[in-house]
Amino acid sequence: MTATAVDVKQRILASNQLAATDLREMFRKSGTLVTNLISSPGSGKTTLLEVTVAALREGYRVGALEGDIATELDADRLRRMGIPARQILTGGACHLDARQVIRALEEEVAAFKNLDFLFVENVGNLICPTSYDLGEDFKIVLLSVTEGDDKPFKYPGIFSKASVTVITKADLLPHVRFDLDAVREKVSTLNPKGRLLVVSAQTGEGIVAWLRLLEQELEMKRNPPI
Amino acid sequence: MTATAVDVKQRILASNQLAATDLREMFRKSGTLVTNLISSPGSGKTTLLEVTVAALREGYRVGALEGDIATELDADRLRRMGIPARQILTGGACHLDARQVIRALEEEVAAFKNLDFLFVENVGNLICPTSYDLGEDFKIVLLSVTEGDDKPFKYPGIFSKASVTVITKADLLPHVRFDLDAVREKVSTLNPKGRLLVVSAQTGEGIVAWLRLLEQELEMKRNPPI
Repeated sequence: MTATAVDVKQRILASNQLAATDLREMFRKSGTLVTNLISSPGSGKTTLLEVTVAALREGYRVGALEGDIATELDADRLRRMGIPARQILTGGACHLDARQVIRALEEEVAAFKNLDFLFVENVGNLICPTSYDLGEDFKIVLLSVTEGDDKPFKYPGIFSKASVTVITKADLLPHVRFDLDAVREKVSTLNPKGRLLVVSAQTGEGIVAWLRLLEQELEMKRNPPI
Repeated sequence: MTATAVDVKQRILASNQLAATDLREMFRKSGTLVTNLISSPGSGKTTLLEVTVAALREGYRVGALEGDIATELDADRLRRMGIPARQILTGGACHLDARQVIRALEEEVAAFKNLDFLFVENVGNLICPTSYDLGEDFKIVLLSVTEGDDKPFKYPGIFSKASVTVITKADLLPHVRFDLDAVREKVSTLNPKGRLLVVSAQTGEGIVAWLRLLEQELEMKRNPPI
């Protein structure tokens, strides 16, 4: 990038950070646990959310924001699960930014009030969303077993920043070459404090541990240890 | 984006276009067929190239440029196939640009001289690489069956610009939900003149048709119909 492009990017990131700080304060007041889900296209973000919503919607107020370049497909899928879900179309941009999240929440004030969980599904992309804080409690990166075990070192930015790595489509492990132990080691090298879960939305493997993690984080946010 | 950001992006794209025009003229003189492979991370670009190189290296001079954020893993894999391959590390950027291609070729003048086929594997990303011309003859988008059949409409930019769509990992079709007919229809809506191939690097399905397409395009480039 040219010097000018770098300057502009820094200005954009700084302005995003201000908006993200506002969002974080808002979510602190409402006691909403906010996660920012990031992955390649087709890693199973929406499918994991469908399973998650099915389990959580009885006991909690759950909402979702769905980032995409085009189409309302993902928000439609989550609305069918009976929760408020809003699509944010980025018009070509490869990531969500904090202002888009603020605008979406302002336009849906009633539906998104006092949520327990807000899931933000970012645009399918392992690179651009990494730099944009959305006021979330933590980032979650998804990696499906069909994408290959070399991905953590090829996309070190997101794997070192995400507090949780979710390995998805574990039911396909018998059919692909994917060294799970090697991935555990790579992720722990990049991110020693990060947690890693292995799930399958098809068989239900690992979903209980995933739900427990979310519930514990919500509890910790509302009643932080002294 | 702010007005300034848009201005900067337009300036960057215009400057890229100049470099791409130089590249295209260079490849016209050398009679090299250049393809720009674009997909999500883990769709199988490098694996398809391994199979392709294994078939073509006997009869043709083949080279590869490998775009990545980090690591030399992909170029290593292709060098092991016995062809010249150079990694281009973008240092965080989510796409290759034409100047990076020029620099890489200048630094490897001897190895990359008079190639028949030059495969440029872009950074794993369905969004950013779409706008950057690299002087290629055509773009190829890969979509693995594990990524889901909703992707063409969610990433219409690349599916409408790529002359060829390659559906990869067809061997996994029995294990996933992926409506191939629906994908054919979506791609043909976005890109009526585009071609679509279905391949599996594991079973060899569709590879002959893929190789034939490449050989025909090379022949057409060198002996265009009058």
